[in-house]
Amino acid sequence: MSQNQYSSQLLDNAVGQFAKLPGIGRKTALRLVLHLLRQDASSVEEFAAAIRSVRNDICYCRSCHNISDTDTCEICANPSRNHRQVCVVENIRDIMAVESTHQYHGVYHVLGGVISPMDGIGPDDLNIDSLEAKVAVPDSVDEVILALPTTMEGDTTNYYIYKRIAKYGIPVTTIARGIAVGDELEYADEVTLGRSLLNRIPFDKTLNS
Amino acid sequence: MSQNQYSSQLLDNAVGQFAKLPGIGRKTALRLVLHLLRQDASSVEEFAAAIRSVRNDICYCRSCHNISDTDTCEICANPSRNHRQVCVVENIRDIMAVESTHQYHGVYHVLGGVISPMDGIGPDDLNIDSLEAKVAVPDSVDEVILALPTTMEGDTTNYYIYKRIAKYGIPVTTIARGIAVGDELEYADEVTLGRSLLNRIPFDKTLNS
Repeated sequence: MSQNQYSSQLLDNAVGQFAKLPGIGRKTALRLVLHLLRQDASSVEEFAAAIRSVRNDICYCRSCHNISDTDTCEICANPSRNHRQVCVVENIRDIMAVESTHQYHGVYHVLGGVISPMDGIGPDDLNIDSLEAKVAVPDSVDEVILALPTTMEGDTTNYYIYKRIAKYGIPVTTIARGIAVGDELEYADEVTLGRSLLNRIPFDKTLNS
Repeated sequence: MSQNQYSSQLLDNAVGQFAKLPGIGRKTALRLVLHLLRQDASSVEEFAAAIRSVRNDICYCRSCHNISDTDTCEICANPSRNHRQVCVVENIRDIMAVESTHQYHGVYHVLGGVISPMDGIGPDDLNIDSLEAKVAVPDSVDEVILALPTTMEGDTTNYYIYKRIAKYGIPVTTIARGIAVGDELEYADEVTLGRSLLNRIPFDKTLNS
């Protein structure tokens, strides 16, 4: 029995499968598998079934590429949302983050990533064609809000999308970068503080939020 | 769509299942599920199958309760191990820890836990009867080594096992408690340092290790 092998091939196999997940090493994987071994057979069965069905049966919304159980996601199917305002996000976790602010009532468009030559991700790997098709329909969209990560890759993607859709003459905005609410200025990095000075806003505009 | 619900029931279900695992919250669970969604259907199928089969098909060694693919684990089935020396451990992870030292060539006995009234775990919930049965066979065991956690619960269990098997007259030892190799004395806690003074060993005994 070597240090990395267990007394059971089945155990070794299950640990190896868990260890493939991001952020889970072999020690944590072993802990998870031993936990499952202590559970009822029926609840482990449910766990395995949930994993299989989420992979095999899930759909992506035809319009915004959000994860959905049906062809059109709940947000796109909701008539009380503003379908003329499109918020472009990297992935579905960002939809949840924006939704949790309760500040946005438009619809979304999930890119499925950002342009990152280092990781071999180019514009063709992202849902940009379908975004362009959406804004190309005359009188369909009032505003495109770019809510991508404030990283080099996010900025590149913002710029690329802007160049692609500028010709349709629709206002394109991006989320504000600045000092996070509750932060001290002395701990802010210079780039963020510099940007927040450049993009300063009239004080009376802040009084309502 | 509330803050804790996703746009898909299937996703919600899978995230809920992952979040039941120890040390995994809903945010991490979501990250893991989204990772699985990006994998091939076949590798997700393998993952689900590994989970099901580890729960349904795994055996426990008849002799030492170690996890095994067969009735008798590799260690108990190995004729070159010393079957007259039994190391009592809490769980199978501890077997791996002791094995990785390459210092022990006897066999094991897995208790499956330690006595912990706070968690409702009493002696009857542990594999203590089978340990007693093992040492009760005349001239079968030379030494029982207690390698339980050095906690209150571990100490209680050590004492309970000692009382149960003392009548068979077999030497019972416990792993040494003391300053960890590489540690500074000034950072050691008083209890450990006190014990390491009480249980001091002749210097010449340390020269071979």
